[in-house]
Amino acid sequence: MAKSAEEVVRNYCALWERQDVEAVVKAMTPDCIYQNVPVPAMHGRDEVRAFISKLLLTASKVEFVVHGLATAADGKTVYTERTDIFSLGDKKMEAPVMGVFVVRDGLIHEWRDYCDIATLVTQMKKLGFTPGTEIPS
Amino acid sequence: MAKSAEEVVRNYCALWERQDVEAVVKAMTPDCIYQNVPVPAMHGRDEVRAFISKLLLTASKVEFVVHGLATAADGKTVYTERTDIFSLGDKKMEAPVMGVFVVRDGLIHEWRDYCDIATLVTQMKKLGFTPGTEIPS
Repeated sequence: MAKSAEEVVRNYCALWERQDVEAVVKAMTPDCIYQNVPVPAMHGRDEVRAFISKLLLTASKVEFVVHGLATAADGKTVYTERTDIFSLGDKKMEAPVMGVFVVRDGLIHEWRDYCDIATLVTQMKKLGFTPGTEIPS
Repeated sequence: MAKSAEEVVRNYCALWERQDVEAVVKAMTPDCIYQNVPVPAMHGRDEVRAFISKLLLTASKVEFVVHGLATAADGKTVYTERTDIFSLGDKKMEAPVMGVFVVRDGLIHEWRDYCDIATLVTQMKKLGFTPGTEIPS
């Protein structure tokens, strides 16, 4: 039986926590659209890979804490409220975020995250990331 | 029959669009918690009224465009993806936002909105609002 959209999203978050870049990318459709609103969207797996690689490969631990989620009546759109935590040794970036995922054929097709970008950038700097290389603007 | 959580949230957004401050406040529980994450939360109707009054009374038009929404399995938590638009004559503030509402006894008990605060502040300035009076920090 096909996985529910909720299962697809939970599995996708688990791939982030495993820090498996290729698995994360392949869990998205080839024509995926990923946006940290209001930063312009990334299109396709290559742009996503370029954006997530350094972050995922450098972090010593990644956690997507899902506080709650709900699937829309269309059965394919999943809303989440999360805290995304990226650790680098004893330094931590904690981003309170809401995200909406649209699932197609068992893959993530659209993903829009909403959070306070300044909070994200400030915290990324603590981890030694340079905004502008990780966050396209 | 009691309204569904989705109906409560849609009605609540409609009250914002009617710019009816007292109706908005009374549609929330006396011990409501309203937060523009990561700005500290407001507690209770008086704090909410103080926060929303100038904005609602000054704007010439208010629109909460709901792009999509979903109710969690608990039947009381509603996730929304919206664009909130506040107009003042020909000036517009458009905030892309996700928000989660928790309904209790037909009233909004918790409301957390997630958006890029810098976008919000920049756009509020265009409308002549001074950040710090409208957004507690």
